[in-house]
Amino acid sequence: MDIEELLGFAKRAGFFWPAAEIYGGASGLFDYGHLGATLKRNFESAWLKYFVTSNGYHLIEGSNMLPEKPLIASGHASRFNDVVVGCSKCKTYYRADVLLNELNIKVSEGAKPEELEKAIRDNDVKCQKCGGALMQPKDFNLMIDVALGPENHERGYLRPETAQSAYLNFFREFNLLRKRLPMGLAIIGRAYRNEISPRQGLYRMRELAQAELQIFFDPENWEINDSGKLLERQVNIVPYSDHETRRISGNEIVEQLGIPRFYAYHMCMINRFYEEIMHMPADKLRFLELGGDEKAFYNKLHFDIQADISSWGGFKEIGGLHYRGEHDLSSHTKGSGQDMSVESNGKRIMPNVLELSFGVDRNIWMLIDLMYAKDGERAVLKVPYSIAPYNLAVLPLQKDDRIIEYALSLESELRGPFKVSYDESGSIGRRYARMDEAGTPLCITVDFDTVDENSDRFGTVTIRDRDTKAQRRVKRPELADAVTGALA
Amino acid sequence: MDIEELLGFAKRAGFFWPAAEIYGGASGLFDYGHLGATLKRNFESAWLKYFVTSNGYHLIEGSNMLPEKPLIASGHASRFNDVVVGCSKCKTYYRADVLLNELNIKVSEGAKPEELEKAIRDNDVKCQKCGGALMQPKDFNLMIDVALGPENHERGYLRPETAQSAYLNFFREFNLLRKRLPMGLAIIGRAYRNEISPRQGLYRMRELAQAELQIFFDPENWEINDSGKLLERQVNIVPYSDHETRRISGNEIVEQLGIPRFYAYHMCMINRFYEEIMHMPADKLRFLELGGDEKAFYNKLHFDIQADISSWGGFKEIGGLHYRGEHDLSSHTKGSGQDMSVESNGKRIMPNVLELSFGVDRNIWMLIDLMYAKDGERAVLKVPYSIAPYNLAVLPLQKDDRIIEYALSLESELRGPFKVSYDESGSIGRRYARMDEAGTPLCITVDFDTVDENSDRFGTVTIRDRDTKAQRRVKRPELADAVTGALA
Repeated sequence: MDIEELLGFAKRAGFFWPAAEIYGGASGLFDYGHLGATLKRNFESAWLKYFVTSNGYHLIEGSNMLPEKPLIASGHASRFNDVVVGCSKCKTYYRADVLLNELNIKVSEGAKPEELEKAIRDNDVKCQKCGGALMQPKDFNLMIDVALGPENHERGYLRPETAQSAYLNFFREFNLLRKRLPMGLAIIGRAYRNEISPRQGLYRMRELAQAELQIFFDPENWEINDSGKLLERQVNIVPYSDHETRRISGNEIVEQLGIPRFYAYHMCMINRFYEEIMHMPADKLRFLELGGDEKAFYNKLHFDIQADISSWGGFKEIGGLHYRGEHDLSSHTKGSGQDMSVESNGKRIMPNVLELSFGVDRNIWMLIDLMYAKDGERAVLKVPYSIAPYNLAVLPLQKDDRIIEYALSLESELRGPFKVSYDESGSIGRRYARMDEAGTPLCITVDFDTVDENSDRFGTVTIRDRDTKAQRRVKRPELADAVTGALA
Repeated sequence: MDIEELLGFAKRAGFFWPAAEIYGGASGLFDYGHLGATLKRNFESAWLKYFVTSNGYHLIEGSNMLPEKPLIASGHASRFNDVVVGCSKCKTYYRADVLLNELNIKVSEGAKPEELEKAIRDNDVKCQKCGGALMQPKDFNLMIDVALGPENHERGYLRPETAQSAYLNFFREFNLLRKRLPMGLAIIGRAYRNEISPRQGLYRMRELAQAELQIFFDPENWEINDSGKLLERQVNIVPYSDHETRRISGNEIVEQLGIPRFYAYHMCMINRFYEEIMHMPADKLRFLELGGDEKAFYNKLHFDIQADISSWGGFKEIGGLHYRGEHDLSSHTKGSGQDMSVESNGKRIMPNVLELSFGVDRNIWMLIDLMYAKDGERAVLKVPYSIAPYNLAVLPLQKDDRIIEYALSLESELRGPFKVSYDESGSIGRRYARMDEAGTPLCITVDFDTVDENSDRFGTVTIRDRDTKAQRRVKRPELADAVTGALA
């Protein structure tokens, strides 16, 4: 699927579409429908369990609006910029690096206005809409400001990343959580960016969902207990030094690339999440290192987590693993006056931060891109059963009163423990097709045999499995267990 | 507890505190710590299961920022106001009705600037801070505006309620969900209000969490199937007509007060949620009817859901049940040009809306207020086991290497299926006390007997129950089942 096809499918099936659609939509803002919202929530729950609670880390929540002081201290107020260039004639605005890259003029990700201006001049780039002359490129801050209070005297911003809320709460949580390092604080929530030209569906949004885990640690005393042998996993990795892809183990990443063991360990942890929980094929995931001006100045190590997403033209960022050093706590110590250094193994240290950052919307897009499969005429969304929006559908095979009554009572019995769809309209083939596209693992059909006391199939229903298409009759008292077993 | 005591407890234990605290905080913005965030998420999951999925309704998600058009159509741009009055001398601003009410000068909730000005003049009210003269009261719109795009030419707002996202998605979802009424769309998310004077902890916030269910229905064809006999439940209700509290059944609400059956049914549903799932005492919950200017002009019926919250001085709103009629879909039909009338039983109708609205933060505050209990020296947060932040704690009784090693392996085994706290520092009494204040249902202690091969208690641990304080020894292989049983 290309971008338009994926957007079309997402809309038609019930995953997502532009916000305020009936008013013509809004750039970079999306709503999730009944399938998408649950898929997203299930993805977030799986992420939370795998990365956070299973490791003894903690979920917290931070307000989306923040006063300006912490965002001055973090550097966002001065540095969180893209370079914008506008047309002097039609007033269309472009993100300068994106405009140039689309014209196959190479500029680096962190390019400054001067470099971009030179590239525009050298290549005689004009407005792509009207051919007009472009104005001088300039820095444009991506934060969205809010003014609070009756006289708008409290200046603030919508947070540009959830991470800041974790840093702002480090001090209190460290004291609450018995002063132990490493300590992990996770946030699942929204971030806001005034993107110059939002595009590519869920790729560049003005309001996005992030799932981020900040691990605070002492770099001299973080013993990784690898009893689960995570470091033996094979990972696709592209170092900045030679831009060559290799598939090597976590241990080899440490030995051959000189990457710290704690860092390689978390690469393997992320790899396992995608391969084992999300069922991603091994060749679809890689870690790409950013270096030089590409990475944020404070990052000591920065790998993008990338997935091979054909609708986006190949490997694209869906997350990142960032060794942010002591930048964050040092900045907020300076900015707030609250000393956040701590005692660790007899020394006073400023905790370092390892950030595992995931763009939830991009992950949802990626899952649909990778897992939407055509099997002849049949289209199936092969998302893992564990995160599918519905667990099962109840479908009366015929429009018969007794069958429908039975099906409805079955639906209401099952929708306590399971997420259930019910559908009685249209041919059974159309209804199966709809559930296949929704990724529903199981379809349960009720037919004449089910309700016919003279049938030897009386009191049984048929379960159809999404992936095997296998059907089997199950007695109603055994149904809940059969469903639980099939979903596991 | 009064407000300051509850805030102090919430901070000390790990529930919530002002956002950007290390920078001195921010008015009306709060962060949730590791206990609060999980309590909130568990509350939301319980709400989602009880009101939404168990009824065959659907969760969706909407963007927090909206373009201005729909909020003009909904009436928020012109009508979503409070009346502000400022001091001419010190420039302190007050919400006029709140200022007057605090001085025991009665004004109605929806009072207009003229009425408030008269009350201020008649009672010679001055600035409470400096005694200066007050300026003329004026309408103040509570929406927070955002300007999007590189030239800030796309004007929008942070949504003032999640409900709008449901109305904006009605048309697409109705078509996706097989054109059946009633249809329920739920949103759990944030809303934003530029409160003039945020206060009382989580009562009046500038950023709040809502859990709202919008049920779209045909008022002439909504048959309530009360097979669960919900309408027999006793409910505390205060009608607008006589302001008298009575405790009567749902059926009596229909018969005696002339309230529609579907409406009384949902009162009983809400009542059951609070009494049976949240374990609220029957006398702590009531439905208070608003009438006249108090209620929104479009509401046909409006009851606040109120809880008796001593830190807030008595019964306060924690949610509402609103029969909004066809206002919402009619307004957006006019505003967008998208006709949202539908076919129902052979007639063309504009679906009506019944809204079940809950302020999540207020509910969290309420749970802490009602369930924090002193039992002699012992303080326990008696939240239901089903929503407690931790399921259990693992506590090594002595600081012995073998005991700690055993406890740590137990912790890592249990934290897959359960949310587990681990604590080895301080006396066991202090650690129990901390877990009691966190509302943790079970504490599991490991002692010398556990690790001593010669003891007849070798391989057993002690489980202590929060509410009964009963302790019992359990063999490790039976532990997971014992925990599951105790939590059920």
